[in-house]
Amino acid sequence: MRVITRQIEVEIPADSGMKDITSLIADLLQETGLEEGSVNVFVPGATGSISTVEYEPGLQEDVPDALERLAPEDIDYKHHQTWNDDNGRSHVRATIMGPGVVFPFVNGKLELGTWQNIIAINHDTCRRKRKVVVQFMGV
Amino acid sequence: MRVITRQIEVEIPADSGMKDITSLIADLLQETGLEEGSVNVFVPGATGSISTVEYEPGLQEDVPDALERLAPEDIDYKHHQTWNDDNGRSHVRATIMGPGVVFPFVNGKLELGTWQNIIAINHDTCRRKRKVVVQFMGV
Amino acid sequence: MRVITRQIEVEIPADSGMKDITSLIADLLQETGLEEGSVNVFVPGATGSISTVEYEPGLQEDVPDALERLAPEDIDYKHHQTWNDDNGRSHVRATIMGPGVVFPFVNGKLELGTWQNIIAINHDTCRRKRKVVVQFMGV
Repeated sequence: MRVITRQIEVEIPADSGMKDITSLIADLLQETGLEEGSVNVFVPGATGSISTVEYEPGLQEDVPDALERLAPEDIDYKHHQTWNDDNGRSHVRATIMGPGVVFPFVNGKLELGTWQNIIAINHDTCRRKRKVVVQFMGV
Repeated sequence: MRVITRQIEVEIPADSGMKDITSLIADLLQETGLEEGSVNVFVPGATGSISTVEYEPGLQEDVPDALERLAPEDIDYKHHQTWNDDNGRSHVRATIMGPGVVFPFVNGKLELGTWQNIIAINHDTCRRKRKVVVQFMGV
Repeated sequence: MRVITRQIEVEIPADSGMKDITSLIADLLQETGLEEGSVNVFVPGATGSISTVEYEPGLQEDVPDALERLAPEDIDYKHHQTWNDDNGRSHVRATIMGPGVVFPFVNGKLELGTWQNIIAINHDTCRRKRKVVVQFMGV
């Protein structure tokens, strides 16, 4: 049983924009040589999330549209009063979606559905380069 | 320290319907003989989720009702234009809730609350048999 | 590779109130002596959640406000009919947010962003002392 921690950096569009990182994770997995275990994909930072999606252009709009119903751009946030910031909605969305997901792998391959991609989401109000921690555990 | 990966298949109602899989997971845990560690319960596929709930008939309606506020059935989804599909809401709900949860166990028993059950959720628009990956790590 | 399971108890305000537990988790991590691995922070109970947030007073109102849009206080819940209970919204919020998060650590330190704190959330309708399971795995 081993633990191997890597890190990637991805540039992601603003306002719950997303980036497909499946192949980056799969490549890192192959490099580890691990066969069975799990990989924790985690965004440090309070305005990012990890999840999965069928990565096609339509859902890249539909998901932010739903998050806009949950935490809209055009309402007042108390957070703006604290720091004179403009990204209250970004924080709220990140807290509700969560910062990470743990993915199982078997025979050296991620156990994803055929149309299921791993995505990093940037809820912040500007395009950002985000660090993602990728930690493998297994044999 | 060992890794043991199993798989179950459960039939789940449509539109964020849910199925209690607590006893299935507990039985698999007992079979492993592991005493302390965690089990990653993960749905491959872009329209499923794992979570917990007090499993009684009321909440089996209340949870889908809330998800209907977040991603309603009767609005347009860009996803429908991409594939001529009808399940945009299913994808959006799955991405926001996430595909898996990691549960700790101690003394061979899941650390759940008394009225807390593990559920697999099917956000898709038709009743589906869904595969669930169940991966144990521990001693 | 070792597994070490601890437990903390925290008192948390009602209605998706939150408590910063970052330093409690960091202290437990230091006590384990582990250098690289992950810690599963998990709430037993069907009305609690774990997530991260920039822990400042504004967001402690903004996050519950958004959850109130998702599962409002003043609507009927089928759950209330089942048990004559009043906390349907609490259950719904907990199921959608999920009960736990797995945090990676490296060099004995949690891989969090500078303004990212680990929080335990109490969605229930009364202030509650909640148990949180804290399970470390690593080397």
